[in-house]
Amino acid sequence: MTPAAPLLLTPGPLTTANRTRRAMLVDWGSWDEGFNQLTASVCARLLAILHGAASHHCVPLQGSGTFAVEAAIGTLVPRNGKVLVLINGAYGKRLANICEVLGRDFSTFETAEDEPTTAADVERLLQADEGITHVALIHCETSTGILNPLPEIAQVVKHHGKRLIIDAMSSFGALPIDARQVPFDALIAASGKCLEGVPGMGFVFAEKQALAAAQGNCHSLAMDLFDQYTYMARTGQWRFTPPTHVVAALHEALLQYQEQGGLPARHQRYADNCQALLEGMAGLGLRSFLPAAIQAPIIVTFHAPKDPRYQFRDFYERVKAKGFILYPGKLTQVETFRVGCIGHVDATGMRAAVKAIAHVLQEMDVLDI
Amino acid sequence: MTPAAPLLLTPGPLTTANRTRRAMLVDWGSWDEGFNQLTASVCARLLAILHGAASHHCVPLQGSGTFAVEAAIGTLVPRNGKVLVLINGAYGKRLANICEVLGRDFSTFETAEDEPTTAADVERLLQADEGITHVALIHCETSTGILNPLPEIAQVVKHHGKRLIIDAMSSFGALPIDARQVPFDALIAASGKCLEGVPGMGFVFAEKQALAAAQGNCHSLAMDLFDQYTYMARTGQWRFTPPTHVVAALHEALLQYQEQGGLPARHQRYADNCQALLEGMAGLGLRSFLPAAIQAPIIVTFHAPKDPRYQFRDFYERVKAKGFILYPGKLTQVETFRVGCIGHVDATGMRAAVKAIAHVLQEMDVLDI
Repeated sequence: MTPAAPLLLTPGPLTTANRTRRAMLVDWGSWDEGFNQLTASVCARLLAILHGAASHHCVPLQGSGTFAVEAAIGTLVPRNGKVLVLINGAYGKRLANICEVLGRDFSTFETAEDEPTTAADVERLLQADEGITHVALIHCETSTGILNPLPEIAQVVKHHGKRLIIDAMSSFGALPIDARQVPFDALIAASGKCLEGVPGMGFVFAEKQALAAAQGNCHSLAMDLFDQYTYMARTGQWRFTPPTHVVAALHEALLQYQEQGGLPARHQRYADNCQALLEGMAGLGLRSFLPAAIQAPIIVTFHAPKDPRYQFRDFYERVKAKGFILYPGKLTQVETFRVGCIGHVDATGMRAAVKAIAHVLQEMDVLDI
Repeated sequence: MTPAAPLLLTPGPLTTANRTRRAMLVDWGSWDEGFNQLTASVCARLLAILHGAASHHCVPLQGSGTFAVEAAIGTLVPRNGKVLVLINGAYGKRLANICEVLGRDFSTFETAEDEPTTAADVERLLQADEGITHVALIHCETSTGILNPLPEIAQVVKHHGKRLIIDAMSSFGALPIDARQVPFDALIAASGKCLEGVPGMGFVFAEKQALAAAQGNCHSLAMDLFDQYTYMARTGQWRFTPPTHVVAALHEALLQYQEQGGLPARHQRYADNCQALLEGMAGLGLRSFLPAAIQAPIIVTFHAPKDPRYQFRDFYERVKAKGFILYPGKLTQVETFRVGCIGHVDATGMRAAVKAIAHVLQEMDVLDI
C-alpha cells in the first residue's frame, strides 16, 4: 500500500494544493468559537461566489455530494410535490432514484448522453403536466462532461411558477452561475470539486423563503436542511459532529480561490487545461465523445482506441505508473475513458499527461486509434 | 481566527496524533486500487477489535456518527418493525427522534440521567409488549458519561428472540465488546472517537444475515447500508465519493492503536486519564455527577461551582487560554460541565488540565465550590 502521489485527473477527489492539505494538521473543537467562525466564513465565501447572500442561505452538510442532493430534495420538495427530472447521464438517473426512494412523485425526461436538455423541452413538458411542482437538473453531467443550458431552463421554470433544483456538483466555482439572474430553490455542490477542497461535505444554497417553508418535509433526521440551518443560525454550530478537518481545508481552499482571482481565474485555468488536453489528445488521434459546443471544461470523455491491444485496466495502470490517474468511462453504449481538467493542475500538467498517454499507447503497441 | 492549538478534552472531535493528521497530506483517488486496499484494511481492523469477522460485516458510511445511527435503524428495522428505545440522556432521545422521523413504530423507556437501564427493566418491557422487534440502546451515554450494562441487556434481548441495535459511538475501541459473546444486529461507532481518527465517517457492524435480509428497507438512498455494503463487496469501492483523507487518517490511527497494544492498552490509558481527572478535581472540591460504579472512563460530568462568580462561558475561555478545551454540560436539571478523558492525551495531560482549572477558579475568585 503506497501513497497515491500521482496527479488525479478525475472528477474528484482531485489533487489539492499542499497548503489546503496542511490546513488539516490542526484539530478543532466543534463547539469552539474559533471553529464556528471558520464555518461562518466558509458559508459567506460560498454565497459570495454565487452572488446569493440576499436571496439564499448556504447550508453545509456532512457526507458526500449525493447526501446533499438527497437532503435538498427531501427538505425542499413537499411530500405531495412532483418532480420533473431531466436526464442525460448517470447523475440525472440518480436524481430520479432519490425521488423514488424518498417516495416523491416524479416523471423523467431523458435525452441521449451527447444531447443537452433544451429550454423548449422543459417548456413543452411543463405545459403538458400541471402537476409538476419542481424541476431537477444536472448542470454539468459528469458521466460525459456535457453542459446543460441552465439559465434558459431556469427562466422557463420560473415563468411557469415552478421551482428549480440544480445539481451543480462538478460546475460550481468554475462555471458562472449568478443567483441574481438564475432563479432556483436549491443549488447543490461539494467541497472536493472545483473549489479544490478535500471530499467529506456538501452544501446546499437554499432560497430563503423556500427553506423557511420546509419544516417537517424531510424524510431523514440527519439530512433535514431546515433543522440544520435553524440550529446553525441559532448556535453558530453544526447540528451533528462536523468533519472539522474537511471544513478547515475548504476554508483554506477558498482563501486561495479568492487570492487567485475567483471564478473568472478558475474558469480560465480549467478552460486552458481542457484546451491543452483536447489539442494534445487530438494530436494522438484520440477523439472526444462530445462536440466542443456542449463540452464543459470539467471532464472530457474520449472514445477508447479500437485496437484490440487496448485494455482500459492495463492502460490505466501504465499511465498511473507515469504519474497520472485517469478515470474510467461511464457510458453503457460506447467504450470510453475520461480525463478530468479540474484540481490543482495547469496546462503544463495536462500536456505532461498527454505525453504520458502517448508513451503508454506506444508501449502497448496500440496503433489503431 | 487562530488555529485551535489547545488540547481538546471533549467527547470528539478530539486531539489526534500528529502522525494521524499527517496521513491526510496525500490525495487519494477514490477509484484507485490503493485506496480500495486502504478501505478494506480499515474495515478488517475494525472487525478485529470486535472479534466480529465471522458474524458481522463492517459497513463504513460518510458523515457523522448520527448519520450511521440513522442508517442502521433505517436499513435494519423493517418498515413494520417496532423499536424499544432505552433512554437515559440526549443520545437515547435522539434514537427515538430518528424512529419518529423515519416513521418506524417505537416505544421508549426512560430512566434518570444517573440511572442505568437494567436487564430486569428490559425483561419486563419485552414481556409486556410482544410487538417489539428491536431494542435500541446507548452503550455509554455521552450526556453524562454513564455506562449501561450492555452484555446483560443483550442476553435478555436474545432470549426473547428480539434484535439489538447498539449506539457505541463513545465506547467502541476503549471498552471491551466481544461480538462472539454479545449478540447484536447492529453496533455503530465513528472515526473521531476512541480510535482517535478525525471526524467525517461512521461505521456500522451489521450482523450478516440481518443485513442480507434488509434490501429495500431503507428510507434513504445515500444511507442504505444494504446497498453500501453490496456495492463495496462487488467493487471494493465506496458507493458515493468517500472522505478519502478521513479514511486515510483512520487507517493511520488504527495502525497506532494496534502498535500501542490494542483495546486493553487504550482502555487502560483512558481509565488512568479518568482516575487522574477525578482525583485532581476532587482535590479542588469539584464533585462528579455520577457515582464511580456507573462512570465510564470516556467523559466526566462535574457539578458547576455554586459560587455566583462562576459563569461557564468565562471559565471556558480562561481554561482555553491555558491550553485546554472543555465541554459544556448537557443536563437540563442541574448546572454542569464536562471533561473528556479520550483522545491523544495521557494522565500527565489530565493533571495539567486540573492545574489550569485550579488557577482559573482562583483568578475568577470562585470560592464556593
